[in-house]
Amino acid sequence: MGFELDYIFHPRSVAVAGASASPDKRGHTYFKALLELGFRGKTYPVNNRASEILGVPAYPSVRDIPGEVDYVISSIPNRDILDLVDACAAKGVKVLHLFTARFSETGFSDAADLEQELLRRARAAGIRIIGPNCMGLHYPREGISFDTTFSREPGSVGILSQSGGNAMEIISDGGRRGLRFSKAVSYGNALDLNEADFIEYLLEDPETRAIGGYIEGVRDGRRLFEVLRRATARKPVVLLKGGRTSAGTGAVSSHTASLAGSQAVWDAFCRQTGVVPAADMEELLDLLVGFTFLPPGGGTHVLILGGGGGGSVRSADEAEEEGLHPVPVPQDARRELTAMHPFFGPWINNPMDTSILGGSGLRVYDLLEALARSPAYHLIMVNMGLGMGRDPQDPSARATRALDHNLDVSRHTGKPLALVMDDALPRGEGRWKAGQELREHAMAQGFAVFPTVRRAARALRRVTEYYLDRGVGEA
Amino acid sequence: MGFELDYIFHPRSVAVAGASASPDKRGHTYFKALLELGFRGKTYPVNNRASEILGVPAYPSVRDIPGEVDYVISSIPNRDILDLVDACAAKGVKVLHLFTARFSETGFSDAADLEQELLRRARAAGIRIIGPNCMGLHYPREGISFDTTFSREPGSVGILSQSGGNAMEIISDGGRRGLRFSKAVSYGNALDLNEADFIEYLLEDPETRAIGGYIEGVRDGRRLFEVLRRATARKPVVLLKGGRTSAGTGAVSSHTASLAGSQAVWDAFCRQTGVVPAADMEELLDLLVGFTFLPPGGGTHVLILGGGGGGSVRSADEAEEEGLHPVPVPQDARRELTAMHPFFGPWINNPMDTSILGGSGLRVYDLLEALARSPAYHLIMVNMGLGMGRDPQDPSARATRALDHNLDVSRHTGKPLALVMDDALPRGEGRWKAGQELREHAMAQGFAVFPTVRRAARALRRVTEYYLDRGVGEA
Repeated sequence: MGFELDYIFHPRSVAVAGASASPDKRGHTYFKALLELGFRGKTYPVNNRASEILGVPAYPSVRDIPGEVDYVISSIPNRDILDLVDACAAKGVKVLHLFTARFSETGFSDAADLEQELLRRARAAGIRIIGPNCMGLHYPREGISFDTTFSREPGSVGILSQSGGNAMEIISDGGRRGLRFSKAVSYGNALDLNEADFIEYLLEDPETRAIGGYIEGVRDGRRLFEVLRRATARKPVVLLKGGRTSAGTGAVSSHTASLAGSQAVWDAFCRQTGVVPAADMEELLDLLVGFTFLPPGGGTHVLILGGGGGGSVRSADEAEEEGLHPVPVPQDARRELTAMHPFFGPWINNPMDTSILGGSGLRVYDLLEALARSPAYHLIMVNMGLGMGRDPQDPSARATRALDHNLDVSRHTGKPLALVMDDALPRGEGRWKAGQELREHAMAQGFAVFPTVRRAARALRRVTEYYLDRGVGEA
Repeated sequence: MGFELDYIFHPRSVAVAGASASPDKRGHTYFKALLELGFRGKTYPVNNRASEILGVPAYPSVRDIPGEVDYVISSIPNRDILDLVDACAAKGVKVLHLFTARFSETGFSDAADLEQELLRRARAAGIRIIGPNCMGLHYPREGISFDTTFSREPGSVGILSQSGGNAMEIISDGGRRGLRFSKAVSYGNALDLNEADFIEYLLEDPETRAIGGYIEGVRDGRRLFEVLRRATARKPVVLLKGGRTSAGTGAVSSHTASLAGSQAVWDAFCRQTGVVPAADMEELLDLLVGFTFLPPGGGTHVLILGGGGGGSVRSADEAEEEGLHPVPVPQDARRELTAMHPFFGPWINNPMDTSILGGSGLRVYDLLEALARSPAYHLIMVNMGLGMGRDPQDPSARATRALDHNLDVSRHTGKPLALVMDDALPRGEGRWKAGQELREHAMAQGFAVFPTVRRAARALRRVTEYYLDRGVGEA
């Protein structure tokens, strides 16, 4: 299989069955996205009660469309689904994506039977199915999406998600973390195309540099194992598994009718395949941010710019608890600091508590650079928490300058830098905007931003270990 | 000791040594806070180069103040500190709080000697010292604070923090989580008054119903142990320990010159004293929110309103991983649901995926209430994540109505309810405002709001276990 699936992502024409004039309907959004995102092929709304949708002539059935149709998006009720698949067969449709749901996931045997009949007819006609019960494709470069509010800037992260809601959360929240996507596929009940197919495709896809996913069930464990082994040899693959617990497994069965497994089995599976497992959505995004923006580090010794005294203590504890090593200032760097200032030089530590520097005449930048140059440190973490959002007197320009200095240090030294920018809800809109701008400024320059020290430390450690395990980036 | 310390919190007059006209200086903020928060006693700015500060006549020395002075806040350089303590002795000052720093925490022996001499002279004159190297008191009801941007509404949470920065973070971020404070004390190097003194005071303080703290070192382990045993018998005590790791311990010594211990020792100490340990600042605030807003639950069986299919699966996994039990819908409640709808009734699960209900005519509220009434459930968790922030078509009024329904269910059943409201950074200001308003609406009605399912589940479990251990709230 693999890259043969590429045609699925490049249809020459797309029809939306159930395209609607009502903005509340998903059939509206699918069609609107094709227009707004600038899909270059032909687009056909299908609706048996409207003559046009969003200014484009509508057809009562897929059968009535004059030209060829490669790809059909279905948002019609499931009682009409066999008629639709027959119409697709008659038109020579290659791919049918079903937003349409209420099949096997309902737990009713007649719904499961309908799903199987749908599969039988599609297979007989050579139609590949995405879904049912899913959002389908988000491929901004091609102009196909299930939402019109996502960033349309193409990127390098490829996503597969068995859940449509989780796919939306990954793209939406990940977008706010600076992630941009090559393609994302929400594939629901995985009736035909499944997780192994999409991973195999993304592994070959030159637009995709890292793969992230949310998986509930495994349709063919042996094949998935083999595909993942090949994928992880080429690109980082970060997966969040739904249904790790007994309660989660129960929820999975009524969501995508999948058979989930236990946490222990999944952990072993990840170890053997080289998959980086994520514990939850927050960690999935943190790891994708790490693999997208952090260069390989040569080890786990971390230099921390702490953000105040208590913040420095907490940073040191959390970094060490997450497997990093905030090692003390080495002798030669200590001599350099002491030469810079006889009082503050011996007092400066790792983490650096910069709140002690008042009246010293020292610049944080110079201290940070002196330490960051030391071969004793492989990684840099900068906690902007206190400096940025809390001091109403702190002008945004000064914060931006401080930030740029920190980014410079990472560029000079080539060492991975994780920025911690507190996303605790700010009190005023002015501060919220200033914080947002600062964060976006950092992300636009290609830096990894995390909301807490613990999450930054965990991502730094896991990304570093990933590269060390593969012999990348060692000193 | 204990409540005898009450006089410290009720001075009849306060002088600020180093009061400044420059808004950048902390000596400005201390004095401004007294005026702005409406401190009812006499206030005296002390500054030897200004005739007035913020419109109030200034005195060159504490000695020159005409009336009695109970309480002095020092933000002068430490080279003048012995003169200040002598002046305080001459004036009969009872309490000296030193924002002034650079004593033993610098690691220099002359600075440590100065600190000891300061202590000797203060003791000889009967002056109690808060600090040095700390922010001092925040007591909104009395009109004393170290910041003018905090909420001034008094509350029931008492805080002690060895770090000033962490005290600010607790009050500021905690304030945005709906917490309001009786008193907070930042006590720095704990030269005289220490953690045991403040906990002993807060345990007796009728304004304080829960105690939270950040501690770096323990001055007298035996006394702290005994004080905490007494405190936890009366009120929940949640403590975050700085210096749990070797790196953290190193950072502690240059921050407040304290001797930190190991994680294992601290864990045992918490178990034996009944302290609820917090792993980090996020958990400290989550637990204080839990102890402030959640009634005792009778067990760990949780009903979850999931927020979509994938969100429901993730909620189930995370709740179970954090020690809660999202048990299946029991038979009698199942019959009730099926009577409400023959198709959707059997399909509804715990967690409830409400995204399946389209066209059912069922109201989420009715389903939630039917299940929440069941004795099978002790706790309720509602994930508002998807419903609230992401759908631009979702009018705020509808979200508020949905929220009010959920709150009603908790009120009717008397069961603890944790609301999960995603604080991922929203894209637009409009949504940010709508989300903020909804969150504040919930908090104003006395509900516990958490930013992620995992954090909500952990807080629910720990608060529930706390009460169960004490035999409170059992069925």
